[in-house]
Amino acid sequence: MIQSVSPFDLVQDGLAAVESALIETAQQDHPLLGPTLSTVLPGSGKRLRPALALLVGKLGADRPEPMLHMATGVELLHTASLVHDDVVDESDRRRGEQTLFTRVGNALAVLVGDYLFAQSAQRCVATGDVRVIGLFASTLGSMCQGQIEEASRGNNPELSVTRDDYLQTIWGKTASLFVLACEGAAILAGLTEVQIRAMRRYGDRLGLAFQMVDDVLDFTGDEARLGKPVGNDLRQGTITLPVICLREAMPNGDFRAAFDAYDVPALLTLVNESGAAARAREEAERMLAEAREALQAVPPSAARDALERLTYFVVERRV
Amino acid sequence: MIQSVSPFDLVQDGLAAVESALIETAQQDHPLLGPTLSTVLPGSGKRLRPALALLVGKLGADRPEPMLHMATGVELLHTASLVHDDVVDESDRRRGEQTLFTRVGNALAVLVGDYLFAQSAQRCVATGDVRVIGLFASTLGSMCQGQIEEASRGNNPELSVTRDDYLQTIWGKTASLFVLACEGAAILAGLTEVQIRAMRRYGDRLGLAFQMVDDVLDFTGDEARLGKPVGNDLRQGTITLPVICLREAMPNGDFRAAFDAYDVPALLTLVNESGAAARAREEAERMLAEAREALQAVPPSAARDALERLTYFVVERRV
Repeated sequence: MIQSVSPFDLVQDGLAAVESALIETAQQDHPLLGPTLSTVLPGSGKRLRPALALLVGKLGADRPEPMLHMATGVELLHTASLVHDDVVDESDRRRGEQTLFTRVGNALAVLVGDYLFAQSAQRCVATGDVRVIGLFASTLGSMCQGQIEEASRGNNPELSVTRDDYLQTIWGKTASLFVLACEGAAILAGLTEVQIRAMRRYGDRLGLAFQMVDDVLDFTGDEARLGKPVGNDLRQGTITLPVICLREAMPNGDFRAAFDAYDVPALLTLVNESGAAARAREEAERMLAEAREALQAVPPSAARDALERLTYFVVERRV
Repeated sequence: MIQSVSPFDLVQDGLAAVESALIETAQQDHPLLGPTLSTVLPGSGKRLRPALALLVGKLGADRPEPMLHMATGVELLHTASLVHDDVVDESDRRRGEQTLFTRVGNALAVLVGDYLFAQSAQRCVATGDVRVIGLFASTLGSMCQGQIEEASRGNNPELSVTRDDYLQTIWGKTASLFVLACEGAAILAGLTEVQIRAMRRYGDRLGLAFQMVDDVLDFTGDEARLGKPVGNDLRQGTITLPVICLREAMPNGDFRAAFDAYDVPALLTLVNESGAAARAREEAERMLAEAREALQAVPPSAARDALERLTYFVVERRV
């Protein structure tokens, strides 16, 4: 397996078309909306979700137009959810830049997020496939529920958040969108039902692993690459997999004592040195192995190879 | 014409089913989401938009199930937009009660609004009609644009807002949803293309008039019935039809002088005593006459009568 070739190479043309579609969405003949959208849509982001849709699309019938709508729709939905996330968390920075929330304020950020939801809905509708549109609507529901779960954790979340809670939350906030990209594209490409289910599973596992790696990097990464301070989740009281792994491996009293003080630098060290971060990372790798397994449901092809390579890129965070 | 019979009588059963669907949406097995939704969904609101959908539905084929989804979907969309409006305007009160924004805070109100958008999308998708779903998505876009227009008026809006700006804004924020209810139901009921266009026009005119009457009442109404203080729009710097009518009838210098001081009680008196409020009301009545005219495209029936009566109820604000 040649891992040095980017898994995105195969869909460069499609990704360029998505970029044009995003630029077009941002070119609103409105004195405020146009300039605002053009700071969140073109050029930013890694386009992982559209790439996923386009790669899965290459496994079946060549249908460039609905696939472009699908790929653009998932990216718009992703962007909309980021804009509202930053409102909800009152975040200053994202990807190392000022957030829209900080630049234009709460009110307009809420409305621009809504507008992006509407645009993503229109793209998904433009695929013309009722099943895909239904998937879009249920994904939107799952995403919101995931966010509400996370925002509504009670006191002492480090004691109460179970592994199931965590998985449910990250499914809603991250994996659901990967599933929409993969399952939606599989439907549009006319894959068999067994293959559609397999692509759903691939998206699900890849999405969960992607978020798990993200959550591990919050403990182990360096600030310059993350574009945000290490230990951000802990500081915000968000409990993720590494803390759950720590809790499982420590006597209950010791764990409680460590968190009673809530000394973030000390907790970061503890999660790293106890091996909890490493165990969380292994869990992500197991998810990625399951994602690769799911790919066996489709015949070998350049696109399947690229989807397989993508699982390695995710864990190395090269996408 | 017997105007004392409520135009809603004909669709009482359908409205009861919508109410059950809204209650069901609010019964979420979630410690925070369920209780929060149950304060905005059941029992509140006049259900004008679902009633419109159900009445138009009665003009054609009897299709209770998709019509229930349609009627519920428009009410969920309406509720979602109200929740976000209150976030954007930082409003304390709506319909005489504390807003969700005030009760649960900015973050959760944003997420609950998103969740309601998702639920409305799912209802519209459940109609199974791609054309209706497309209409839903474009309505969502128009609504957001209307809100952004309004939120992004520059300085001295009283000088710069044209009648066209005003109409565009109220189309997006109010009439678009009436159009969705009427046109969507007309499509689902299998009306002819000419009749579908006529129902679209009916919804458009009724919706514009509804908002115009609302805007006039902000100058002429009494606080107890409005559930909010008179002159609220002026105080927030929102320029509506009565002020546009005033500007058109006054020498430019005098108008400018009146607004330079921006003395709200004095401006309220001026708008009322100059006849500007009355002229704005007449404009709403002309819209309603056009709505009634549009109804001529369908054969006489109890449902058509009810839709006609509804136009009188709107101007008298009995709905």
